[in-house]
Amino acid sequence: MAVYTEIADAELEAFLTRYDLGAILALKGIAEGVENSNYLLQTQAGFFILTLYEKRVDSRDLPFFLSLLEHLASRDINCPQPVRTKAGEALGTLAGRPAAIVTFLEGLSAKLPNVAQCGALGAALAKLHAAGADFTLSRQNALALQAWPSLYQLAEARAGEVRPGLAASLAEELQFLGRNWPDHLPKGVIHADLFPDNVLFLGERVSGLIDFYFACTDMLAYDLAISMNAWCFAPDFSYDLAKGQALFKAYEKIRPLNRDEIAALPILARGASLRFALTRLVDWLNVPKGALVHPKDPLEYLAKLEFHRKVTSAEELGVKG
Amino acid sequence: MAVYTEIADAELEAFLTRYDLGAILALKGIAEGVENSNYLLQTQAGFFILTLYEKRVDSRDLPFFLSLLEHLASRDINCPQPVRTKAGEALGTLAGRPAAIVTFLEGLSAKLPNVAQCGALGAALAKLHAAGADFTLSRQNALALQAWPSLYQLAEARAGEVRPGLAASLAEELQFLGRNWPDHLPKGVIHADLFPDNVLFLGERVSGLIDFYFACTDMLAYDLAISMNAWCFAPDFSYDLAKGQALFKAYEKIRPLNRDEIAALPILARGASLRFALTRLVDWLNVPKGALVHPKDPLEYLAKLEFHRKVTSAEELGVKG
Repeated sequence: MAVYTEIADAELEAFLTRYDLGAILALKGIAEGVENSNYLLQTQAGFFILTLYEKRVDSRDLPFFLSLLEHLASRDINCPQPVRTKAGEALGTLAGRPAAIVTFLEGLSAKLPNVAQCGALGAALAKLHAAGADFTLSRQNALALQAWPSLYQLAEARAGEVRPGLAASLAEELQFLGRNWPDHLPKGVIHADLFPDNVLFLGERVSGLIDFYFACTDMLAYDLAISMNAWCFAPDFSYDLAKGQALFKAYEKIRPLNRDEIAALPILARGASLRFALTRLVDWLNVPKGALVHPKDPLEYLAKLEFHRKVTSAEELGVKG
Repeated sequence: MAVYTEIADAELEAFLTRYDLGAILALKGIAEGVENSNYLLQTQAGFFILTLYEKRVDSRDLPFFLSLLEHLASRDINCPQPVRTKAGEALGTLAGRPAAIVTFLEGLSAKLPNVAQCGALGAALAKLHAAGADFTLSRQNALALQAWPSLYQLAEARAGEVRPGLAASLAEELQFLGRNWPDHLPKGVIHADLFPDNVLFLGERVSGLIDFYFACTDMLAYDLAISMNAWCFAPDFSYDLAKGQALFKAYEKIRPLNRDEIAALPILARGASLRFALTRLVDWLNVPKGALVHPKDPLEYLAKLEFHRKVTSAEELGVKG
């Protein structure tokens, strides 16, 4: 659920005169992205997305995100393209926030992806990793292993409200991951948040990837673990092996995993589970009364973590060894 | 802030096959309307609004609303038009709720309407009243005088949390309005919620009126009082006489008020203030923890009520006697 910053009429008009988009015809706040305010913007030139970057996005990262979108498009990845002003700028200021206009992509996100869509996602993710290989900017993953202890500390005292004994169990997992986290796997640009919300389909064809505001430089196989967690579990949080198989098979057709990546997948999946369990837990425990933002239930990712703790090989996740 | 009902992919597709709109290309939840779930829908035929009617709208009222939109369009009022299915139906069922597709209107709502926009609104409201004159369906105003005591009872016990002594002051106002409410003024179809959110502008020209889900049969001058309250106060809740004058002057150019309507305006304005103060108060006191819907502050309409209590003639509101 997105937030919506109010934009004063005159300020919006002034902002748009910097662009070559003609007169504004419509502006509607849309429920897209959780970190920023997003609006559907119609001008005489067509439909666009106007994004106001809220405080959780570090404005120093915006050039990385916007350049990445342009780089990926030049490598035939269909993702939103920044619209530049007459002066050539991709980034401006609106309502006191950094703001950008990007192209509007057709397509619908799958509420509950089917096996074919998991396969299509696997292929799209591999193409994304291949397309990012020669991107020259880099950005540290702000939510990588090193960040998890401080997230844990934010949640520790009240974690028991969500489930008795949760703090101790998370502390144990943190220790385990700290000792066993891989550090020698192929790295590159990862999306880091390629959930079903962020993948647009027309039928079973991927028509676009969106919301690159967690993109960073990290292990490619970790990105795969994040998406596997988001796409291949049933609504009851049981693992759907057929979906996992479709995802990995399609991914490996374009970018085969090496032996180390395959061996590391179970632990990467534990880390990917913990990362989302921790951020959701912190959000869940800190939701202000009357907030517009409805936090996601941390129990989903705690259940996925429990599953992955029992996994002993990548084969159980659907990877052909 | 709108609510968003999740729509299963297959169900949405099945719903759309009933229409002659081609394949679906995009669907985005939008922040429009407070009672229903609204989505921007793109199909091969263009852009539309898909509305799922949530529980606060009585489904028996939907034929009234949808017929009204068609009637008004036939009288040159620019408002959303129901798209009928191949079988000629304006209303269907989606995600267990009544659902309709209406046309997408260009235009932007004014965040803080200026004097010229208040004038344009006055003219649009008068045209709306004239266009509704030969509409044959009727619908009782579910939030009229008769409904206020039960709203008051829902808020009475906890009204003091909002302002000490509020319950007694509201009870007194209810009594006064019950004794003095006019019952002989011209009636017709009123919008009953024509706030700035619901009026689209292109520049200073009204390009469309939207969100007719409070429309009903009631006193035309009461509709004017509702809009005056919503359009002609400054952000500090002081009355802006220039805006009031512009509103009434433009309205009367198209539909002159009779002497009784003018004399009744101050009391209609008190009633219009109380009606929104009460519904906002009830919502404010009953917001569930973690709710997606952010209730509007009841203090705004309590301040407007205080202002109108001191008004002794319509001239003070900007009506030429």
